[in-house]
Amino acid sequence: MNAVLETIHNRVSLRKYADRPISETHMNLILDAAIAAPTAGNQCLYTILMIKDPKTKEALSESCDFQPFIARAPVILIFAADQQKWFDYFSSKGVKAFAKHSGLSFEAPQESDLLLACEDALIAAQNAVIAAESLGVGSCYIGDILENYEFHKELLGLEDWVFPVCMLCLGYHEENAVRVQQKRFDREFIVFEEKYRKLTNEELDRMFEDKEKGFVEKNHYGAENFAQMFYARKTDAAFSKEMARSVRVALKKWDGRRL
Amino acid sequence: MNAVLETIHNRVSLRKYADRPISETHMNLILDAAIAAPTAGNQCLYTILMIKDPKTKEALSESCDFQPFIARAPVILIFAADQQKWFDYFSSKGVKAFAKHSGLSFEAPQESDLLLACEDALIAAQNAVIAAESLGVGSCYIGDILENYEFHKELLGLEDWVFPVCMLCLGYHEENAVRVQQKRFDREFIVFEEKYRKLTNEELDRMFEDKEKGFVEKNHYGAENFAQMFYARKTDAAFSKEMARSVRVALKKWDGRRL
Repeated sequence: MNAVLETIHNRVSLRKYADRPISETHMNLILDAAIAAPTAGNQCLYTILMIKDPKTKEALSESCDFQPFIARAPVILIFAADQQKWFDYFSSKGVKAFAKHSGLSFEAPQESDLLLACEDALIAAQNAVIAAESLGVGSCYIGDILENYEFHKELLGLEDWVFPVCMLCLGYHEENAVRVQQKRFDREFIVFEEKYRKLTNEELDRMFEDKEKGFVEKNHYGAENFAQMFYARKTDAAFSKEMARSVRVALKKWDGRRL
Repeated sequence: MNAVLETIHNRVSLRKYADRPISETHMNLILDAAIAAPTAGNQCLYTILMIKDPKTKEALSESCDFQPFIARAPVILIFAADQQKWFDYFSSKGVKAFAKHSGLSFEAPQESDLLLACEDALIAAQNAVIAAESLGVGSCYIGDILENYEFHKELLGLEDWVFPVCMLCLGYHEENAVRVQQKRFDREFIVFEEKYRKLTNEELDRMFEDKEKGFVEKNHYGAENFAQMFYARKTDAAFSKEMARSVRVALKKWDGRRL
């Protein structure tokens, strides 16, 4: 196994950080690695917000499902899908008049533009994660940035066509900390050859066998198996309902309306 | 610079592949690296379709904006956001009856579930890209897999809650091939500190300075600058309109309806 594969397999989600800032040299290497990432048509349809202000970190630790460790990360990076810059550039260069003149329509970004920009943002984020890990800087993805869209828009000063799709907490690993790797599903349930294949109940049983070991018979959900417990914990959770609401509100901006 | 950073910066989008298959050892290392990627709540909300069948590759080279090189890639990996497996698992474990009994609602996956699963899929894809590069296997992302949703659903046998969010062409680099790195925007236009900041026209001019060197005064769009040319080429293009349509159709499946 080469150094790259070792770094990839060694990486764990780090939620406890050494009590020192990330050096400027390391931070620059991490950001440069993110910016080197593949991007659709070399458009770089994303923005990275680098956050160190304790007040903002505190606010994010609350708005992202009340996870206090977020506020203790030396640096937070938010990767936002961004079609605003290209749109503003078009606007500044008379594209609206040109489009009208040429019989084209001048359209606002739409759902497909959002997805494409999310791809750019996430690919860059994972480059940052791997680069960071190679420098001794651990990371943790926070999906909860998908919640509370209106609050984050205000907090971070986001424009309409800037959508925060993922967040990374970054900080050095503590010395001699134990790394616990989480087991993934077996490859046969993740990789299919040639075509998708709906799994049979027997296959699903094997797929979830390890997870089911985590089922607690006496649980306050009244669940009789792991699936029921997980569903209750997920559906009932405020964060999940909030995420659904928040994403739906955000999506409304990406309507491709004629301008 | 360490080996990981070197691999990240060395990587280019590879569209011309050496004429030999990817070894099984290398393919397994690439897939294992993808599966090791971070995933929301360790749910692995994605599926990787590994495609080697020449007929399928041919079909994809046409459906993904007629790019013949796609058919010549030894291996194609499609990363699909996948909430189907968890949903089927819930269904097989009596979650619907349990939910009714407990006063919860049993809901289909919705837009937020799609986005979260897209995150998993893209993060895994970028792990595959970096792992591949470290083994001499080049890659090219194909965003056009977002187009022709219905056709791809049929071609690949996708279930309703499986959405192909990105595609990778993979193959060995040819010996002594020249690598041309594409220049990205300057960091000041990608990374913002603490808050988002709408760029001024003067900043946009500087941001796009290099791209504007690619403007051809005599162009059949009648465009007077790079912005107008790029917009005309993008808006007018069939692939762009198709992508917008296709994504909108796919999104309709993710409606969170009560079941």
